[in-house]
Amino acid sequence: MASVDVPVALLGYGTVGAAVDRFLTQGADEIERATGHRLRVVRALVRDPVRERSHHPADGVLTTDFADIRDDPSIALVAEVMGGLDPTGGYVLELLRTGKPVVTANKQLVARRGAELFAAAAEAGVQLRFEASVCAAIPVIKVLRESLVVSNVHRVLGIVNGTTNFMLTRMAEGASYEDALDEAQRLGYAEADPTEDVSGADAAAKVAILATVAFGTRVVFDDVDYAGIDALAPAQVDAARRLELVPRLIGSATLVDDRVDVRVRPSLVDRRHPLASVEGAFNAVMLQGDAIREITLEGPGAGGNETASAVIADLVSIVGTSATGFLQDDAVWRDLERLPPGALRSPFAVQLDVDDRPGVLAEVTRLLAAHELSVARLIQDPTPDGATLHVVLHEAPEGDVLAALEEIAALPESRGRPSALPVVSDRGVAGMGWA
Amino acid sequence: MASVDVPVALLGYGTVGAAVDRFLTQGADEIERATGHRLRVVRALVRDPVRERSHHPADGVLTTDFADIRDDPSIALVAEVMGGLDPTGGYVLELLRTGKPVVTANKQLVARRGAELFAAAAEAGVQLRFEASVCAAIPVIKVLRESLVVSNVHRVLGIVNGTTNFMLTRMAEGASYEDALDEAQRLGYAEADPTEDVSGADAAAKVAILATVAFGTRVVFDDVDYAGIDALAPAQVDAARRLELVPRLIGSATLVDDRVDVRVRPSLVDRRHPLASVEGAFNAVMLQGDAIREITLEGPGAGGNETASAVIADLVSIVGTSATGFLQDDAVWRDLERLPPGALRSPFAVQLDVDDRPGVLAEVTRLLAAHELSVARLIQDPTPDGATLHVVLHEAPEGDVLAALEEIAALPESRGRPSALPVVSDRGVAGMGWA
Repeated sequence: MASVDVPVALLGYGTVGAAVDRFLTQGADEIERATGHRLRVVRALVRDPVRERSHHPADGVLTTDFADIRDDPSIALVAEVMGGLDPTGGYVLELLRTGKPVVTANKQLVARRGAELFAAAAEAGVQLRFEASVCAAIPVIKVLRESLVVSNVHRVLGIVNGTTNFMLTRMAEGASYEDALDEAQRLGYAEADPTEDVSGADAAAKVAILATVAFGTRVVFDDVDYAGIDALAPAQVDAARRLELVPRLIGSATLVDDRVDVRVRPSLVDRRHPLASVEGAFNAVMLQGDAIREITLEGPGAGGNETASAVIADLVSIVGTSATGFLQDDAVWRDLERLPPGALRSPFAVQLDVDDRPGVLAEVTRLLAAHELSVARLIQDPTPDGATLHVVLHEAPEGDVLAALEEIAALPESRGRPSALPVVSDRGVAGMGWA
Repeated sequence: MASVDVPVALLGYGTVGAAVDRFLTQGADEIERATGHRLRVVRALVRDPVRERSHHPADGVLTTDFADIRDDPSIALVAEVMGGLDPTGGYVLELLRTGKPVVTANKQLVARRGAELFAAAAEAGVQLRFEASVCAAIPVIKVLRESLVVSNVHRVLGIVNGTTNFMLTRMAEGASYEDALDEAQRLGYAEADPTEDVSGADAAAKVAILATVAFGTRVVFDDVDYAGIDALAPAQVDAARRLELVPRLIGSATLVDDRVDVRVRPSLVDRRHPLASVEGAFNAVMLQGDAIREITLEGPGAGGNETASAVIADLVSIVGTSATGFLQDDAVWRDLERLPPGALRSPFAVQLDVDDRPGVLAEVTRLLAAHELSVARLIQDPTPDGATLHVVLHEAPEGDVLAALEEIAALPESRGRPSALPVVSDRGVAGMGWA
């Protein structure tokens, strides 16, 4: 097949943009072998064309005028790697309306303005792809959309923020939150203002995108009920160790009787669960579905080269499927209700400080039983002037657990508020066999 | 886009074929949303059309005459799920030559007759896809070919046989080889004749396919240097526990200075390596490359539904990329030399039984040093009438390790032959961060 020249434009030419340009040049032969096309960057929108850059684009590539890209009919594909919501969102919308397929690495844009962007893409009959917006080079969007078409994925569980996973790995080894954050900042994993990561907001945007693709219903950032590791007490990390569980920030999307729950929570993961062995700044996503039981994808969740690799995979896929109608539509095809927040079932690890007096344990267990909460494991540790109870409860609706804890907190023997963290031990498969 | 009817034929209608038919029917809407096409099974080649089946095909679907499929111009796609080399290989070849795209789940066919089949596909301008031939529903072929186009994957490490991984998991827990095999047979993971699995031959076919796709050079079954868990001594499994390593059957494909090494070996895996946490009948493949560092995919490596899911992913991908030139060619584009077998570098765990006499350790370590082998870890355990040495050697060429062991075996203090197993501790990334 004769080679076809495909001019590509970039919005942004920072670390990721420069890596996309470099890989398209270095990998031109590989891409041509896969697609029959040669992709090359002909334009890149930047704010400051004279800034020193790690990779130098060809002469005449850099421009500060968006119209140079939008109005150039020869540009066949655009990759948005500038980030931010504004003016980025407007640019992407204009490009799609002009009939240019767009690849974006921008999780906030997809998680907040997806409906509008995909509608514009569908109307123009072009693709909008977004692999790089979730977990960088880990091809979870492609696998969900192309490999698991008939698998009825009903649960997605993920470690989708590398910064907090690095911090939790250190904290599980004994470091304090502050020391772990310092180290993450020193190594460049955490920003000077780490709020986006430690609050769970970054993970929430990613899990919104995963839920949308997995379930075919629109889930936006504001739909996600999120909590971060900034709310995690040191005692909870210690408790994890005591219970032989591993603290992880887990994003989950769950389909229960055609209702959807999407949340981000500091959680305690069973040591034998595949997500427990994901350490440092790595990400992993587990997909559970009917035909596949469970598939877990693990890898680096960030980084310039990794993100660029995903952008290029999307460019290649667009070239490889253009005019076939494949995945041209939005992944969204139905409108599902939200599961009421308290209805999601999970095992929980509860921690409570009590006076060490006869009858306390009886009172606590009576209240749990009154809410039909069943104890899987209980450890009572003495403290200098009382006791700490670690209780792992079997799967139960979160609302029932919180209601029981309210009542336990009101006992005269209770000290402070009891805490509860979800425990992740579920697998798409009972046991580990094929059967 | 108007829905297009796509008649599909199956070669074989056993567990996998029936599952493909069922999923195409149940998932018709999902497939149409993704591709704009409705796929349905119109013909299935079987030996015995009156046999009782778990899923009943529509009337008139079953045929015993291959020509009914080959000569029917309305059949747009064929999935080969009958297995075996003969007559299967001839059928697939004829179908490709007739211009019908084929999806196959047949690892032996792809690993042994790939060159011929892909040449026929290329000549006819149709696709031959084979996701289901390696690790069932785990989409490793798609990820390698479509997501990692510019990543220069230079190493593939995998647990690609579920039967032996189940057995090794049990053996690491203390079961004997015989008990583990019995249990695997009882649970239906192992055949009555387990040779194909325990000898490493099944893994060898899969790693040949992975190497071919990853490196773009033809690697056939006979190129793979394989050993199975049937050669593993109980003492080696015990040694793994002593060294805090996990026994796994590892298939590896390695690119060293444009030379290729492909092998299957019982190996000892570092506990913190992602492949160490893969338990039971699961499979996992780690891909290491420049842009991605490492990506690991884990999931069930066998099963009727899982295999059918991969077959359907391939059918969907063919429909979604037809006439674009995408992946129409063979993955093979270069002819690379083989690395001489002794040249592959790896850490090794060596185990030797010696007399407990002064000077033995000095002799052993002198011979190791003479071959420039450096000791990472050494444990000497007393035995009733001597000592067992467990030595973990830093990365070194296998040939040097074997040569040193020959000399050590010749020492008068040596008892029996020392054994060496490769240790898997390498990651595509130094440390666990992004940097």
